[in-house]
Amino acid sequence: MKDIYVADLAGFDDGRLFDSFFLVLAKQQRTTKQNKPYLNLILGDKTGQIEGRVWDPGDPRIAREFERGNLVKVRGCVSRFDDRMQLKVDQLRKALPGEADKMDMLPATTRDVQELWCELEKAVAGLTNPDLKMLLSTLLADAAIAKSYREAPAARQLHHAWLGGLLEHVVSLLGLADRVAAHYPMLDRDLLVSGVILHDIGKIRELEWEMGFDYTVEGVLLGHIQMGVDLVAKTIDSLSGFPDRLRTLVLHMVLSHHGKLEFGSPKLPMIPEALVLNFLDDLDAKMQAAAGEFEKCAREGRPPDELTGKVWALDQRQLLNTKAWLKSVAPQK
Amino acid sequence: MKDIYVADLAGFDDGRLFDSFFLVLAKQQRTTKQNKPYLNLILGDKTGQIEGRVWDPGDPRIAREFERGNLVKVRGCVSRFDDRMQLKVDQLRKALPGEADKMDMLPATTRDVQELWCELEKAVAGLTNPDLKMLLSTLLADAAIAKSYREAPAARQLHHAWLGGLLEHVVSLLGLADRVAAHYPMLDRDLLVSGVILHDIGKIRELEWEMGFDYTVEGVLLGHIQMGVDLVAKTIDSLSGFPDRLRTLVLHMVLSHHGKLEFGSPKLPMIPEALVLNFLDDLDAKMQAAAGEFEKCAREGRPPDELTGKVWALDQRQLLNTKAWLKSVAPQK
Amino acid sequence: MKDIYVADLAGFDDGRLFDSFFLVLAKQQRTTKQNKPYLNLILGDKTGQIEGRVWDPGDPRIAREFERGNLVKVRGCVSRFDDRMQLKVDQLRKALPGEADKMDMLPATTRDVQELWCELEKAVAGLTNPDLKMLLSTLLADAAIAKSYREAPAARQLHHAWLGGLLEHVVSLLGLADRVAAHYPMLDRDLLVSGVILHDIGKIRELEWEMGFDYTVEGVLLGHIQMGVDLVAKTIDSLSGFPDRLRTLVLHMVLSHHGKLEFGSPKLPMIPEALVLNFLDDLDAKMQAAAGEFEKCAREGRPPDELTGKVWALDQRQLLNTKAWLKSVAPQK
Amino acid sequence: MKDIYVADLAGFDDGRLFDSFFLVLAKQQRTTKQNKPYLNLILGDKTGQIEGRVWDPGDPRIAREFERGNLVKVRGCVSRFDDRMQLKVDQLRKALPGEADKMDMLPATTRDVQELWCELEKAVAGLTNPDLKMLLSTLLADAAIAKSYREAPAARQLHHAWLGGLLEHVVSLLGLADRVAAHYPMLDRDLLVSGVILHDIGKIRELEWEMGFDYTVEGVLLGHIQMGVDLVAKTIDSLSGFPDRLRTLVLHMVLSHHGKLEFGSPKLPMIPEALVLNFLDDLDAKMQAAAGEFEKCAREGRPPDELTGKVWALDQRQLLNTKAWLKSVAPQK
Amino acid sequence: MKDIYVADLAGFDDGRLFDSFFLVLAKQQRTTKQNKPYLNLILGDKTGQIEGRVWDPGDPRIAREFERGNLVKVRGCVSRFDDRMQLKVDQLRKALPGEADKMDMLPATTRDVQELWCELEKAVAGLTNPDLKMLLSTLLADAAIAKSYREAPAARQLHHAWLGGLLEHVVSLLGLADRVAAHYPMLDRDLLVSGVILHDIGKIRELEWEMGFDYTVEGVLLGHIQMGVDLVAKTIDSLSGFPDRLRTLVLHMVLSHHGKLEFGSPKLPMIPEALVLNFLDDLDAKMQAAAGEFEKCAREGRPPDELTGKVWALDQRQLLNTKAWLKSVAPQK
Amino acid sequence: MKDIYVADLAGFDDGRLFDSFFLVLAKQQRTTKQNKPYLNLILGDKTGQIEGRVWDPGDPRIAREFERGNLVKVRGCVSRFDDRMQLKVDQLRKALPGEADKMDMLPATTRDVQELWCELEKAVAGLTNPDLKMLLSTLLADAAIAKSYREAPAARQLHHAWLGGLLEHVVSLLGLADRVAAHYPMLDRDLLVSGVILHDIGKIRELEWEMGFDYTVEGVLLGHIQMGVDLVAKTIDSLSGFPDRLRTLVLHMVLSHHGKLEFGSPKLPMIPEALVLNFLDDLDAKMQAAAGEFEKCAREGRPPDELTGKVWALDQRQLLNTKAWLKSVAPQK
Repeated sequence: MKDIYVADLAGFDDGRLFDSFFLVLAKQQRTTKQNKPYLNLILGDKTGQIEGRVWDPGDPRIAREFERGNLVKVRGCVSRFDDRMQLKVDQLRKALPGEADKMDMLPATTRDVQELWCELEKAVAGLTNPDLKMLLSTLLADAAIAKSYREAPAARQLHHAWLGGLLEHVVSLLGLADRVAAHYPMLDRDLLVSGVILHDIGKIRELEWEMGFDYTVEGVLLGHIQMGVDLVAKTIDSLSGFPDRLRTLVLHMVLSHHGKLEFGSPKLPMIPEALVLNFLDDLDAKMQAAAGEFEKCAREGRPPDELTGKVWALDQRQLLNTKAWLKSVAPQK
Repeated sequence: MKDIYVADLAGFDDGRLFDSFFLVLAKQQRTTKQNKPYLNLILGDKTGQIEGRVWDPGDPRIAREFERGNLVKVRGCVSRFDDRMQLKVDQLRKALPGEADKMDMLPATTRDVQELWCELEKAVAGLTNPDLKMLLSTLLADAAIAKSYREAPAARQLHHAWLGGLLEHVVSLLGLADRVAAHYPMLDRDLLVSGVILHDIGKIRELEWEMGFDYTVEGVLLGHIQMGVDLVAKTIDSLSGFPDRLRTLVLHMVLSHHGKLEFGSPKLPMIPEALVLNFLDDLDAKMQAAAGEFEKCAREGRPPDELTGKVWALDQRQLLNTKAWLKSVAPQK
Repeated sequence: MKDIYVADLAGFDDGRLFDSFFLVLAKQQRTTKQNKPYLNLILGDKTGQIEGRVWDPGDPRIAREFERGNLVKVRGCVSRFDDRMQLKVDQLRKALPGEADKMDMLPATTRDVQELWCELEKAVAGLTNPDLKMLLSTLLADAAIAKSYREAPAARQLHHAWLGGLLEHVVSLLGLADRVAAHYPMLDRDLLVSGVILHDIGKIRELEWEMGFDYTVEGVLLGHIQMGVDLVAKTIDSLSGFPDRLRTLVLHMVLSHHGKLEFGSPKLPMIPEALVLNFLDDLDAKMQAAAGEFEKCAREGRPPDELTGKVWALDQRQLLNTKAWLKSVAPQK
Repeated sequence: MKDIYVADLAGFDDGRLFDSFFLVLAKQQRTTKQNKPYLNLILGDKTGQIEGRVWDPGDPRIAREFERGNLVKVRGCVSRFDDRMQLKVDQLRKALPGEADKMDMLPATTRDVQELWCELEKAVAGLTNPDLKMLLSTLLADAAIAKSYREAPAARQLHHAWLGGLLEHVVSLLGLADRVAAHYPMLDRDLLVSGVILHDIGKIRELEWEMGFDYTVEGVLLGHIQMGVDLVAKTIDSLSGFPDRLRTLVLHMVLSHHGKLEFGSPKLPMIPEALVLNFLDDLDAKMQAAAGEFEKCAREGRPPDELTGKVWALDQRQLLNTKAWLKSVAPQK
Repeated sequence: MKDIYVADLAGFDDGRLFDSFFLVLAKQQRTTKQNKPYLNLILGDKTGQIEGRVWDPGDPRIAREFERGNLVKVRGCVSRFDDRMQLKVDQLRKALPGEADKMDMLPATTRDVQELWCELEKAVAGLTNPDLKMLLSTLLADAAIAKSYREAPAARQLHHAWLGGLLEHVVSLLGLADRVAAHYPMLDRDLLVSGVILHDIGKIRELEWEMGFDYTVEGVLLGHIQMGVDLVAKTIDSLSGFPDRLRTLVLHMVLSHHGKLEFGSPKLPMIPEALVLNFLDDLDAKMQAAAGEFEKCAREGRPPDELTGKVWALDQRQLLNTKAWLKSVAPQK
Repeated sequence: MKDIYVADLAGFDDGRLFDSFFLVLAKQQRTTKQNKPYLNLILGDKTGQIEGRVWDPGDPRIAREFERGNLVKVRGCVSRFDDRMQLKVDQLRKALPGEADKMDMLPATTRDVQELWCELEKAVAGLTNPDLKMLLSTLLADAAIAKSYREAPAARQLHHAWLGGLLEHVVSLLGLADRVAAHYPMLDRDLLVSGVILHDIGKIRELEWEMGFDYTVEGVLLGHIQMGVDLVAKTIDSLSGFPDRLRTLVLHMVLSHHGKLEFGSPKLPMIPEALVLNFLDDLDAKMQAAAGEFEKCAREGRPPDELTGKVWALDQRQLLNTKAWLKSVAPQK
């Protein structure tokens, strides 16, 4: 249905008309220099965002009623100025049911979500502690929770976040945790695995992704750590006979996983499993940031033996792509 | 029953025998220079602590079985060395039921607990928001919670903490909050008052005060902020029709009351009531620390126109007792 | 005299001619793309600022000589581009004496200054300590000081500052201090009240507000804390018999009121009155910032159940308007 | 030869005479209350340290000449005072060659050093990059370096450090690095493995362990990071044809492995391999600190369901032994 | 040869054609609004930089092949828009050998480089310690090192950096060190002088200045401190009989000269000479920043009795030009 | 008169009786193990301090009335226990007028105070700015100020402080400032010299040195920076015609000389002279700390090629005595 994406527009000539579907991420009334009202829109799909302008909002071919979060069908063309590109909108109407797929409108994981979900279920199935297994099964058996867990991004900013991002991150961590648990016999593997699956579960309530990615008001006031603890505690309390001490440890895993007070964890990790969870979560996030940055440089055609730009997720340091740098021909001094 | 207290012993001559009851705060097996085993004890009552020594643990007049947390009857005398005073124990047995009152064994508020409790109940009665009133009434109607709330100290260290300390601190804050709420019409007085009553409620689970004041293991792993949020959330969820948004705000009040991430609040205050709660809580704690320090100096007979020692609760700064300093005769330069 | 204000211009069509008076806040010579010289101005009045352009500075209807700080009469019209609005100036001359009132040209308190001043004088009259009463009466009886104290803003940035801002802030603090002093009998009320009145008095020399709000060079080099201490010390030294110790305490109140070395107070508060002054000053500033932010959101028509933008005066945190959020219809989940 | 160790003395009665060999860790001339000179010694072996006193240094059975770093044969007995135990020395002479083994005199790894060394050599043999393989083979083929690498402790403080500690730490890291490299295909496994082996190699020059564990003066002035880089650079420069870029990356791995400027790394990790090395090194150190602390608590007979004391290597936080706590009988509330 | 510089263009009318030579600092392909490709260039010479636009890259008068780092001959004219000035390029070809001098193309010291070099050599000649003299003579006798040392800037950013900047900074420090060494007899003057000459020598490898000023990839990964230590260590190791301890101290001087771990020195200064080097290096940099800022204000015609803007090298503080302020007529209050 | 000093007692046998004069630095009533009261004293003279014990305060040979700050004549002997030495006091009476010299009782500079004072006066005489010359002459002509300036220590702690220390520090800084002013023509030499003389003048009020070295209460509440500014401002205001701008700069020099807000300067140095003053003051303090530490090591007989202990004034780093280390025989590796 949708065959023209934001990413394709870079190749379009100015003025070439086309039709496509987009998600309305923002809508604002503004006034031109000549004091004429116009609409300023942010339109997006899974490949990116573009600013749109409706210069004649009174035109009957422009829908009267539409707002942030709607899927719309647009006819228009791009126009460029210096480094910026805009979409001049000639016609706009709300998409009819079935005409467009919301899944096309937001960036999404490139992995197969069903496959990722199976890995998660396999991890739960592999637990030997019956209480933890019951807790996780109960949570994931809740249809609303499971749906959100499969859809949720791992963060708000579009460039670091995509539908299914939470699940993808957790599955990567499960693999890593498995390897590290095997190295340290001291670790309670079941507790570590449970911590991996539960640590960011509050993000399904902290974030909302129906109309782009954003924080909910509740999310800003309470945070995903508290929301996750709340959800886990309530689920535990609905089970009979879940051991008190194990409850405390599971909540401690979620509570402490940011590793430092100033990163929003009100308690430091005080059991080996929490210590490991904090390290692996942090390492995996940084490795994904590095990989993402290398891909971006490649996409932008930067030579492989240059440093990247400053990477926000790595304290603004620059990175070097080891393998590419070693492979490219370097003059011997 | 108990008529000799730790504070009285400073006036006793070395070697003068006496009998009294104490709480065993610590018990340790040790060995003398001559390789003879002896017992090292920490004995306490509401006026302080003293180190005790049982030089002959095999003596039939020394009970075989007693441990940390027991009330004991002791016969012995004090002996001094340099700045330290010890209690030489000749006889020791567990107190019989009814012989001694646990309330005498730990420092306790000098205020009338029943009176304080009435002020708390009056504050709840004065709420106009029916949901908040219901929440607080439900919590305080729980006999176990009410008992703990009346007994709990506000902190662990003996010199800053006493039975009833939590209640005393909350009642002082209620008075202060009342005054400040009247100054700022923007404030939702009911929400502020509820925050005052609930902010430290997790301390009834973070601390235990049966055998001296200490943190529970759960308290160290989760902290009183999380434990308080947990308790409040569970109570709210047991009520029908409590508004979602109000639930979020109440939890936010408890969550943010330390005011900074590095002080263990995972969220900063983001509503005016939470901002005010954080300020008043901090101010009241510091004013109590100052008052306590001035009293201590007076007790120790230091001249009123000297600075105090470095005060831990005020970032190690020294304080000056304004009124005393201005009153004492100061030579005009 | 002045009947068209900057705030009114938002409603004007492009090109509609009008006359009004403004204060020249900045004046700069520039050159157009075609290398033609033009003037760039910042013009302001009590409702805001607007950029002005004189495209033909050689036109005889444009005054030759005028500069920053002058009141001018302007004929022109607005023109808009994207989010920005400019004032195209066709005619400009200096205002004649009496034509325009400087008080209209800078933002000013909405409170009645005379009324505020009476509250201040009432507070001084209410002091029981004769030395402090004499000190404050002497200071406020100085016509130049009194004039400045009534006019001075509390800070430089236009959006947080207005004529009479210092007085308004002090009067609010007086009310708050009164309430808190009644709660803590330990406090020397007279010393606290004096500290409230004197703590920011150095701002009458640190800032200048004749030509917009700015720091004086002396203000940048010495700061309002030092300038205030200097002024208070000099006044005390002109009185006979002011007690040495009281002098030290009054200066300490001013010196320490920022509460931390890194906020520019060279000494931490070390007396209870200084501790309270620091807390109340900080709390009142934050409450005003919150109130101001809520008003701004209302003015901009943002829905009441959204978070505000990041608030600079509150460490860039977002705020939520408690009452508005609770009142607006929230869907029950 | 040596059959009585410091750790055994806890079980000895005061006054019981015995003979044994010790390493002299410190020797100081002092004077008694009666102004009689005596010797104060610190004597150690691989199980710990004890203070020794020679009350009659003129006795012909006390050797005239011996100093810090000597092996000595001692006859004496223990005496205790409060918590401290001393060794009263009646006879003392330097050990004859062959009488005592220096390896018994300092704490040493409980692992088989030869086995650890084989694992290290296996890791080198498993490298596929010929330049890195040549570099590591060359370094480890140097007899002096190899000897030091097998002996060196990983740190100075006796309770965290033992002979062979460096090698033991590196071998543990090799296992961990292997697992993590398999999880992230982006990583250059050979570079990571080389970094693991080389990162702390400067410690063989920063520390000296002949006479107890201490820093060399050069070690304090330059640090093991610089000393390691120096050694690696020199070795690389002795090889012909080692690629310039690979040299830079290897040195960067060593240079950046502490991960933060304030931890003494002058550069942050900027390649994925350096990032991973820093995380694993830190994680392994903390896991060993936790394991060590749990063992210490077990040795001291503390109940398994108590928190440990504050752990220096983990920012003074307390730890809980997960498995022990869950296993011990906990009362259900 | 080159007679028109970037700094001259401010005075040129729009559209006036001229020819000159520039260094290409950046070259980028872009597309106009009408989708026509054009070239965006950054062209520079020793007086500054200007953005260049080639609107018709297909024009036969525009060279096909040229890139960053080339010297080019350009015909064109300036055009202005608001605050920005561009260079419209009509013709462009690579400069012929000998047509233009690279020394004209980058900002350079205004001091005579040969004279500065003589001062450096005089300082080496004045050393009395034969080992240090041999070390420095050997290094400066290396033609490649000497060439780089004479050319290198002291930092990357164009406004703080110029060819010969390193040498100029070192010579200023030599004078300052001489004075301070005479004040403190404790100092080993030869070691201090050697430290001054060697402390930044790694910058000749950390930076490259052929095509504008930039960091090398190796420079970013290792830093000039490590690169300097490497170069000095290698040179020392090529000399026979250089004392070990002196080697350690020289390396320590280079290693510690930034004075703090968080500024990239892995060791703090621990000998008096290193302490002094750190202070003088820091002071001289700040004094040059202040002098540069005062000159810039003068160039921009700002009145001498105003504060400067916020100075980056001085923690964003504003500065005041003492002498100018005191001299300008100030009204007496 | 006084011929036996605290420093001499180290060489005295236990029990050897002697007579000498001391300053009473502290006096405390205590009780023995057998409940007998005794006096604990701290007695001092210019070479150090010793703890004194009066075991029989009722003995008629012990004066009834004496207190902190008195000079006393003592008969007694030393007794040692482990590392500590006490003075057993048999007889004690207040010294008669003329019997003992207070100058012998506190540590004092080894320099000739009159000579130092002449250097200070020479510096004032060498000023060319008449206003600054008048200011300094006026201040130093005040007999009370001059007396205090000659006597005051530079700091409280005995090991870093001695009578005349302030003057000695200022004179050393004058020499250093002279050299550095000659290197930077930008500097206003007179302003720098005045800043050197005035920067710590507040210490004559912040400290008191009659009864040992201590802070005055006023000193703790206001600090020497504020007290110095106050004194300088008052003196300037007593002069007619002192330029306003110069007044501001002089006060800014004093105010900013600690260089950072967190070190108690409420303003950062913003003029070149203040920048230089802050650097030189800091450097000179650190060089004196290093020199003092080296002397202490020499006094204690530590080998010259060892590092010092951790030096408090240098952020707890260890130092190495360059010259001594290079001279001592070091084995070549």
